[in-house]
Amino acid sequence: MEAEPGNLYASLGKEVSGADMQLIQDAFKQLKGRYDAGSSPLGGIGQITLMCLAKLNSESQLLECGNAGHKQYLSYQLPTEASRPILSSEFLSDPAVYERAWNALTERMDPTQRSLGSDSEATNRLLYTTVMAFACCVDLWQRRSRKTPGTFFEILVGSVLGQLLPDWRRSKHIGIPDSAERVSTDIVFGNPHRGPDLVCPVKITTRERIVQPYAHQRILDAVFGWGTYRSVLFCVSEMQLDGKKGVKEICVPGTIKLFQQHLASLAAICYLDPPARYLENDVRDTLPVHSMGSFLSEVLWDMTD
Amino acid sequence: MEAEPGNLYASLGKEVSGADMQLIQDAFKQLKGRYDAGSSPLGGIGQITLMCLAKLNSESQLLECGNAGHKQYLSYQLPTEASRPILSSEFLSDPAVYERAWNALTERMDPTQRSLGSDSEATNRLLYTTVMAFACCVDLWQRRSRKTPGTFFEILVGSVLGQLLPDWRRSKHIGIPDSAERVSTDIVFGNPHRGPDLVCPVKITTRERIVQPYAHQRILDAVFGWGTYRSVLFCVSEMQLDGKKGVKEICVPGTIKLFQQHLASLAAICYLDPPARYLENDVRDTLPVHSMGSFLSEVLWDMTD
Repeated sequence: MEAEPGNLYASLGKEVSGADMQLIQDAFKQLKGRYDAGSSPLGGIGQITLMCLAKLNSESQLLECGNAGHKQYLSYQLPTEASRPILSSEFLSDPAVYERAWNALTERMDPTQRSLGSDSEATNRLLYTTVMAFACCVDLWQRRSRKTPGTFFEILVGSVLGQLLPDWRRSKHIGIPDSAERVSTDIVFGNPHRGPDLVCPVKITTRERIVQPYAHQRILDAVFGWGTYRSVLFCVSEMQLDGKKGVKEICVPGTIKLFQQHLASLAAICYLDPPARYLENDVRDTLPVHSMGSFLSEVLWDMTD
Repeated sequence: MEAEPGNLYASLGKEVSGADMQLIQDAFKQLKGRYDAGSSPLGGIGQITLMCLAKLNSESQLLECGNAGHKQYLSYQLPTEASRPILSSEFLSDPAVYERAWNALTERMDPTQRSLGSDSEATNRLLYTTVMAFACCVDLWQRRSRKTPGTFFEILVGSVLGQLLPDWRRSKHIGIPDSAERVSTDIVFGNPHRGPDLVCPVKITTRERIVQPYAHQRILDAVFGWGTYRSVLFCVSEMQLDGKKGVKEICVPGTIKLFQQHLASLAAICYLDPPARYLENDVRDTLPVHSMGSFLSEVLWDMTD
């Protein structure tokens, strides 16, 4: 971790309370610049999250907005705007609690084991809160920047994996030999040892766009031979507001099974808020579905060994 | 053609001038009902187009909005709204001219030859005008119905092909044997003779969604064996308004070549307004690109023989 441990929140002083959206966006631009230049700026991500939580808590109301099965959802609300639904059990709305969780993560992160440590549930809550705090700020105060939350999530995934795979080379594209074409993925980690490179499509939700990581894996299999690249798809959730009636989870288990069996094989799908439907046996018999916490505690080690 | 030839416009009486959007949407719903029930209601499509042209001409202004290469684009405009760009050379804004073109098409349509006749340019103008008149009405007066123009285009393609392939069975899905899954395409025509079925993905513009028809073709090849299904992708254009600066054509020739070579093989792509870039040799060496007029004059016959 590049940020000094401890006192992340205190070090920002009072400016974070009620920070305007421009300040958050400026910090995001700076963060993206450092990420694009090759670093894994986890400390900066944590600082932005604290700014977002402070703004959300001081300027909007966190209210219940519906249930899906046993999961309860909240939404930050203004008189005329509502944020996307937030899974209550995974969200650390209190900046002080978030900061403690952040520091605990810093302590248990272990690149030699390529693991974020054994407390996979704490890891998942921390990462979920990180993505959602930023996304909710954009929902309430900068709705036109629809793509920014996706980029922020990509930077989070790329930076966490970058810290855990320090000797793997990160890029965005895979060139096709003897051709001007290339496969533009979100994140690729080049394996420094023998073994497959890791391709990481990153999408807040998938819907019909789930086809793309499968098509890319298929092309990579065709061009480079099976086993040269492995894809792990990283998502936040498939939950959305359903008018005034609450929340709904849009799942496409049939499509996933069809693609996994007849188009290409993804190595795994990871969600911060896994849809209940995708944790049922018929889907998990087809491909591994993990919470991102479990993936970063246990699975990454195996997959990159 | 199911509508009686001649006097399509006159038969509608004065109600079409300034018809409100609700009247057009009601006619569209009725049309969709008939199409979904299996008919190919070309006459109803022509009538809706005349209602749309009358409304556009009487309630908005048709103004130049930019050029792309040698192509000049127009846009129907209200004080606060602008329609999508319309290719001037392909658009029959005068309802009387449109009606004559419609009657001429009726006369030269020849299901025994599976052809709309030799005047492929007139066919293309007629079909282009049909899609754009409806789409521009939605742009100006019902912007929330974003998906309706795509459905209208799908009904147009399905109905024209339905008239030309009267003994082929039209459906929307292809079931996967020994499985609950199915491939949901836009239109499938089942071949009554020996030879491949025809799969027709229909998209007003493609952008990143071009991957879907390729993925479907690949799955069909994997499940049923190569040559059981052939896909022809039908599009309107890749042109869009570019802020206040005019128009721009969003092309992805590298992606198309990559997919065509390494993912699956489409039999052809047809555009009502083919992007100049896709008519260059490097793309056409990879896969056939046609205007929809040429496809319906000449190519369909060969392909379904």
